[in-house]
Amino acid sequence: MPVLVMKFGGTSVANLDRIRRAAKRVGVEVAKGYDVIVIVSAMSGKTNELVGWVDEISPLYDAREYDAVVSSGENVTAGLMALTLQEMDIPARSWQGWQVPLITTSAHSAARIEEIPTDNINQKFAEGMKVAVVAGFQGISPEGRITTLGRGGSDTTAVAFAAAFGAERCDIYTDVDGVYTTDPRICSKARKLDKISFEEMLELASLGAKVLQTRSVELAMRYKVKLRVLSSFEEQSDAAGTLVCDEEEIMESNVVSGVAYSRDEAQMTLLSVADRPGIAATIFGALSDAGVVVDMIVQDISEEGRTNMTFSLPVDQVKRAEKAMNEIKGVALNFDVLQIEPDVAKVSVVGIGMRSQSGVAAKMFKVLSDEGINIKVITTSEIKISVLIERKYMELAVQALHDAFELDKAA
Amino acid sequence: MPVLVMKFGGTSVANLDRIRRAAKRVGVEVAKGYDVIVIVSAMSGKTNELVGWVDEISPLYDAREYDAVVSSGENVTAGLMALTLQEMDIPARSWQGWQVPLITTSAHSAARIEEIPTDNINQKFAEGMKVAVVAGFQGISPEGRITTLGRGGSDTTAVAFAAAFGAERCDIYTDVDGVYTTDPRICSKARKLDKISFEEMLELASLGAKVLQTRSVELAMRYKVKLRVLSSFEEQSDAAGTLVCDEEEIMESNVVSGVAYSRDEAQMTLLSVADRPGIAATIFGALSDAGVVVDMIVQDISEEGRTNMTFSLPVDQVKRAEKAMNEIKGVALNFDVLQIEPDVAKVSVVGIGMRSQSGVAAKMFKVLSDEGINIKVITTSEIKISVLIERKYMELAVQALHDAFELDKAA
Repeated sequence: MPVLVMKFGGTSVANLDRIRRAAKRVGVEVAKGYDVIVIVSAMSGKTNELVGWVDEISPLYDAREYDAVVSSGENVTAGLMALTLQEMDIPARSWQGWQVPLITTSAHSAARIEEIPTDNINQKFAEGMKVAVVAGFQGISPEGRITTLGRGGSDTTAVAFAAAFGAERCDIYTDVDGVYTTDPRICSKARKLDKISFEEMLELASLGAKVLQTRSVELAMRYKVKLRVLSSFEEQSDAAGTLVCDEEEIMESNVVSGVAYSRDEAQMTLLSVADRPGIAATIFGALSDAGVVVDMIVQDISEEGRTNMTFSLPVDQVKRAEKAMNEIKGVALNFDVLQIEPDVAKVSVVGIGMRSQSGVAAKMFKVLSDEGINIKVITTSEIKISVLIERKYMELAVQALHDAFELDKAA
Repeated sequence: MPVLVMKFGGTSVANLDRIRRAAKRVGVEVAKGYDVIVIVSAMSGKTNELVGWVDEISPLYDAREYDAVVSSGENVTAGLMALTLQEMDIPARSWQGWQVPLITTSAHSAARIEEIPTDNINQKFAEGMKVAVVAGFQGISPEGRITTLGRGGSDTTAVAFAAAFGAERCDIYTDVDGVYTTDPRICSKARKLDKISFEEMLELASLGAKVLQTRSVELAMRYKVKLRVLSSFEEQSDAAGTLVCDEEEIMESNVVSGVAYSRDEAQMTLLSVADRPGIAATIFGALSDAGVVVDMIVQDISEEGRTNMTFSLPVDQVKRAEKAMNEIKGVALNFDVLQIEPDVAKVSVVGIGMRSQSGVAAKMFKVLSDEGINIKVITTSEIKISVLIERKYMELAVQALHDAFELDKAA
């Protein structure tokens, strides 16, 4: 029998009615002849409640106990889903992470999956079981302790099961009906994409994070797992939602697939830094040691042995970065002034079509210029162009770029 | 190091404040030099919520999935208790049933404990851990599925751990401060007992059920585990609560230790049954098949080959019993009339002193007679005398017997 993996997020199993609705969706796939592996999250709100208790007891908690506590929500929904399916006369049983066993590293609360043995579940399929319900987000360490995969980890569980069982597809049921060309709350013309490539999905992380955990997309790309994102709140046809897949499977696509943004950025510039080998390592080593996550980096052309170094970072890390720079000033580093611009945002256009078609960057810069928006920093990758602009222009920039690249129209 | 087992029920871990209070009690015992095994229930209300969901989904649920769902509450409190102890600088970690592993039979939702290996936890004690926090109520079947021990099963978990680890004592922390001579809500003179024997505790089940699961008392008696029942809501001295122990350890005791009652009983009488061999087996076999739990049985002296058969049963099983009797009437059984008295109650006096001192029964009957209470049925065991009386006299009977046997005064 072909295997299908179906993952239901917290809002899709928030109460018994929603669990029944999800179970009906599973029943539809079973009727088509699939052996189904269902991955469930905790009922929405439950994990937050458990995390809140742990935080209240112990701000610097033992991550092994944290994992033992917060993994319990998924066990409840796994059992309830199995019972609901049985009530529909569909042979089903639940598995907790340690029962599979889904073996992970010992990095508690951020564990990585090492191995998913398939014998146990495949034997039950062979004996006539139609649905294996697996508690998402959790696993077991080599020491026999319960681990969790980090928030949103159930998506990663689902993709890992799809890879291990050679599933035909991994369907991620959530509270949105797919991946959009941009955030519909910012741009009313945002359009749902029928298909998107793994690479684009990763670059659209700032949009995609709301839909799919980034690690699950990386894993799907590595193991060529067809991922589908769709809503559990609507009646679905087979073509519903967004398919995240290999780019070869996307026949036609726009040059640009989406416009992403990141609102709360800041920009820092070190003016007149001595331009000598190792200076970048000194600056960014100190920032890394201070726990600052630097995104874009630009170094000006050197003049008379001195240069300016500009970088962007999350706005809530500015104080830490400023402290780190002032601590090494005059010791490991000389610069004149530290300029800080706390009110910037990042806007990006993403598309695999950019590989074969030039002029995207030029068009993007002209669109922004026509709107009177000044570009502060530019970075590019093979399939993405990002610019740092003043935050107040962010919505305007997203809308203008969405229009200019005609993202409201399908390819 | 001597080992102490401490069990905290649902009301004693109902929220983070109560968990902190319980952890402080554990800290006191650790400071005395004990290695402590803490058994926790789920936060009060949690298990009922989970059971409610299972019942709503599936009235005839798969008990394996029921167990997987309802066992999750204990996992949460075990982790939270371990974190709370760690925060007090007491080395602690949590164990779920399958991690111990606490091996049980496969009788899901009513499993019996088969084995508790001690190596794993003892090794951690040897490495400096001071407290092992174990999720109560749950275990693992030989098939690797999660099992539960039935409601109140955490008491049984606690006693089983005390037996396996040769604990000095098993302290059951609950919301009452011990075992009373009778129910204080019925008799204001009820007195807390300092000590009670295992045998008496078992006979006082109708009182004790509110305090201790009957199975836990049986297990404690078999393995000679000293059980102490005490309140987690009061500051405790070492002498607090009630010690349930071997009768040899009770130097002095009243002839009668307590007065127990069971309010919702009914009495049925089959008039003029043919008195021939096998007739009792026919009647009580049919009742057992119908799921009726019969308590007291009395057969009148036979006259002219016919007799009357009287028995008591829970009042909510009367309809089922009536149906079962009418179904075999004229087929396997002949009787004239089926008399039903739905408004009766059972009152019992219990005491190991009755073994060596006669006259308890006579005194009991006189006390009831003096109050004008008619006795319908009598049964006796070595340490207990029970009578069935009209329900409206129950409180009066309990109070009169409590006074007559001077249970308000210590021995």
